[in-house]
Amino acid sequence: MTRRVALITGGMGGIGTAICRRLASTNGNAVVANCLPGYEHKDAWLDKVRAEGFDNVYAAEGDVANFESVGEMVKRIESDIGPIEVVVFNLGAQIGDRALKDTSYKAFEVGWRLATFALFRVASSVCPLMEERGKGTILVTSATAAVRGNAGQHSHAAAMGGRRMLCQTLNAEFSKKGIHVAHILIDGAVDAPDTLGKMLGPEGFAQLRTSRGKEHDGLLLPAEVAETYFHIAQQHRSAWTHEIDLRSFSDRPWWNH
Amino acid sequence: MTRRVALITGGMGGIGTAICRRLASTNGNAVVANCLPGYEHKDAWLDKVRAEGFDNVYAAEGDVANFESVGEMVKRIESDIGPIEVVVFNLGAQIGDRALKDTSYKAFEVGWRLATFALFRVASSVCPLMEERGKGTILVTSATAAVRGNAGQHSHAAAMGGRRMLCQTLNAEFSKKGIHVAHILIDGAVDAPDTLGKMLGPEGFAQLRTSRGKEHDGLLLPAEVAETYFHIAQQHRSAWTHEIDLRSFSDRPWWNH
Amino acid sequence: MTRRVALITGGMGGIGTAICRRLASTNGNAVVANCLPGYEHKDAWLDKVRAEGFDNVYAAEGDVANFESVGEMVKRIESDIGPIEVVVFNLGAQIGDRALKDTSYKAFEVGWRLATFALFRVASSVCPLMEERGKGTILVTSATAAVRGNAGQHSHAAAMGGRRMLCQTLNAEFSKKGIHVAHILIDGAVDAPDTLGKMLGPEGFAQLRTSRGKEHDGLLLPAEVAETYFHIAQQHRSAWTHEIDLRSFSDRPWWNH
Amino acid sequence: MTRRVALITGGMGGIGTAICRRLASTNGNAVVANCLPGYEHKDAWLDKVRAEGFDNVYAAEGDVANFESVGEMVKRIESDIGPIEVVVFNLGAQIGDRALKDTSYKAFEVGWRLATFALFRVASSVCPLMEERGKGTILVTSATAAVRGNAGQHSHAAAMGGRRMLCQTLNAEFSKKGIHVAHILIDGAVDAPDTLGKMLGPEGFAQLRTSRGKEHDGLLLPAEVAETYFHIAQQHRSAWTHEIDLRSFSDRPWWNH
Repeated sequence: MTRRVALITGGMGGIGTAICRRLASTNGNAVVANCLPGYEHKDAWLDKVRAEGFDNVYAAEGDVANFESVGEMVKRIESDIGPIEVVVFNLGAQIGDRALKDTSYKAFEVGWRLATFALFRVASSVCPLMEERGKGTILVTSATAAVRGNAGQHSHAAAMGGRRMLCQTLNAEFSKKGIHVAHILIDGAVDAPDTLGKMLGPEGFAQLRTSRGKEHDGLLLPAEVAETYFHIAQQHRSAWTHEIDLRSFSDRPWWNH
Repeated sequence: MTRRVALITGGMGGIGTAICRRLASTNGNAVVANCLPGYEHKDAWLDKVRAEGFDNVYAAEGDVANFESVGEMVKRIESDIGPIEVVVFNLGAQIGDRALKDTSYKAFEVGWRLATFALFRVASSVCPLMEERGKGTILVTSATAAVRGNAGQHSHAAAMGGRRMLCQTLNAEFSKKGIHVAHILIDGAVDAPDTLGKMLGPEGFAQLRTSRGKEHDGLLLPAEVAETYFHIAQQHRSAWTHEIDLRSFSDRPWWNH
Repeated sequence: MTRRVALITGGMGGIGTAICRRLASTNGNAVVANCLPGYEHKDAWLDKVRAEGFDNVYAAEGDVANFESVGEMVKRIESDIGPIEVVVFNLGAQIGDRALKDTSYKAFEVGWRLATFALFRVASSVCPLMEERGKGTILVTSATAAVRGNAGQHSHAAAMGGRRMLCQTLNAEFSKKGIHVAHILIDGAVDAPDTLGKMLGPEGFAQLRTSRGKEHDGLLLPAEVAETYFHIAQQHRSAWTHEIDLRSFSDRPWWNH
Repeated sequence: MTRRVALITGGMGGIGTAICRRLASTNGNAVVANCLPGYEHKDAWLDKVRAEGFDNVYAAEGDVANFESVGEMVKRIESDIGPIEVVVFNLGAQIGDRALKDTSYKAFEVGWRLATFALFRVASSVCPLMEERGKGTILVTSATAAVRGNAGQHSHAAAMGGRRMLCQTLNAEFSKKGIHVAHILIDGAVDAPDTLGKMLGPEGFAQLRTSRGKEHDGLLLPAEVAETYFHIAQQHRSAWTHEIDLRSFSDRPWWNH
């Protein structure tokens, strides 16, 4: 029997890991978490998730942003595990606030490579396969910076703005062919020790958590975010969502500030 | 044991009925469909839904647009059935395309009463109760006209644009108090014989259906739309959606035309 | 020789008066400022503006929001002064921040009457005349509340959201017929003693002014705002603006907060 | 006496040339049109514009997209001609509609280099100078693709979406320092034989023109577009526009399709 395969870029941390778990918890799914070639925590991550009982989770190395390795990785997954039905594109590109003069040409370009170009490459690799099979789903994690710029966000906003427009062009070409692309705007801080936690440092992160309520649910809880990814991946093609936002109840939406 | 009560305005047709069924299919829920006082098909509708096995569905008469009856209806429901946790505000206000000269003052005002003012009145009635209990959900069906005007849509677009901005103000005041307001933009035609079907007539509707594929899923299928309403009503408060769109895979999003 | 006539609702205060002056300063223009019937400062306002040398400015009483008087006023102006080429719809509907429970049904409805319905009535009166002549311009003053809701803005945002969508429907029907409708979003406080000044009181307003720089240009200066209204009224039909925003250099755009 | 200097990238064709003329027609202005190093029509263009009487127009070679030459060009202009007060960033990046599979990695990247990265480099070069002088204006030509994606526009939309978000981040950092960045959305075909004309070929372009009315004003006329650029360059800092759109009266705005 063919398994339903999901590929998750940026799958070994933050909401990526939570999405892996959520998708893997359904019978008959196989979930492949992508990481950079040579990523040192790959085995530890995989061991941990499998120890939780998810023996249908796999790891795949491949640099979706910089090298020609996306296509090869996709082929490898399709032949070893099965046809990819769902891609969760979950690479972040936040480099923190930097004034224009402190934003190097390189930093600006790296933002674009991660946020926009990598999505283009992944889509270029999987869309032809999905088109042939008449179905597929691409869930794209995005950020507030995709819909408004803010001081210091030169690299991030330009890159995420490109990401959102790319999602719209992909939909315009592929939705009638059965491929569902959804732009998921995460509007707020995520309760993720392994991503935001590293950026803020242990003390800063502990302080943030405490400030957001006893259950930290003033932050976006990854497991809850994953529920909505799962729902959108399940939507019947007669009622697809193309754009959706997520934030904590105690955060103001970006337009209300 | 207290039941979780949902109130659905515009609940006796189209996606409203499908949402009733979906919410009622969960144990412990009670679902109240609202209709106008004296609505002639009320009993037939209720009999039909109950015959399907949903004995936790109720009907409540009340004119949410024109009279002071909303508050009374809400009180009645709260005392007879239980505290209202979820409101699905599902009144349409589409009157078809009309040139400006054919849009009477009355037609313009009626659009606003149904689309904007009725939501304001319902919110004014239920928000204080939900605030006291520290939780509640208001799911608001909306339309493409809420985000762009088009020729002939003077009444509808002005009314729906107001509806969307009202949802944003409600969220700005109440989300931190635990009340979740979601604006759900239905972007396309719904496979609903009892609403769109009546507007188009039997032949027109049959023709539309046929043109949208063997399973009509080029139209929005009410039962599938209802899945997303149900999901949003279930979202944990750490990951709420405020704005979401829904359309068939074969329809172009409004921005792609 | 026929004069080019402009009608300005909300013309006797704030940016309205500045727009009157700017339009009247061009040879061959006649400018009619509209006020409510019986407005006590009408003559003083007219005397003052005429004393500045603008003998081509007129006053016209008429309630554009509540009564059937718009059509009559338009007819009177067309027969007494000349065909109306430009309408500046400049009625505000801000009632200050009010919690939902403090927003009466009446306050909510009044916001809509001023912001949305009055524009519909004015458009219904002048568009047929402009259509017959194959040209016309309607400049609509609007506010940030037209594009996002905020706490306390239930009435204002619902009303202004409707105003914007109405502008888009008017354009969709009439731009190809030579009628130009522009939605002008004023995003910030205006240096207007006779409008904002009254709302804040003399001390509050003086304090605000002082805080916004020696020349108060951290506020929107009415004469400068009027320059852009004048420019848009002059645009050739091959290059029309439909939506534009205006704010002081030192204010953040609404999306940057 | 110091002259007010404007630099126009993409200045030797289409609306760029018209903007050169409009800015140069004001006494005391000097206008520098930028072209690629070695551009073969540079001298002919300059001769033509000067023959029209604009002896205050200059040419400057420099590749704003690919090489380190922006900074040097800016320095050269500042020392030879005067401090740059206005930049018109007018580089297009439209490559026509291409399916995803026909959009090479290179084409995708070139779009971004022209539309997004070049603006970042120009801004990085001129903003520090403008900041020091406490004033400056950057007018950015943009396209519908900046606000919605469409089939075949993968490269263009991703690039222009980035351009718009970059404009917003620039404003967020620099408007309070006296630098005005305006995003000008050209929503339609321009009556430009030297740009659109080349893309369509002589016959195709002649046919398009004829179809758009006797005076072609169903197309955007460059000289009229330039009037609005000129107006925005003149806006007083108390009333700045950050986002504006332009289209012909007979074209539908992008949201009305």
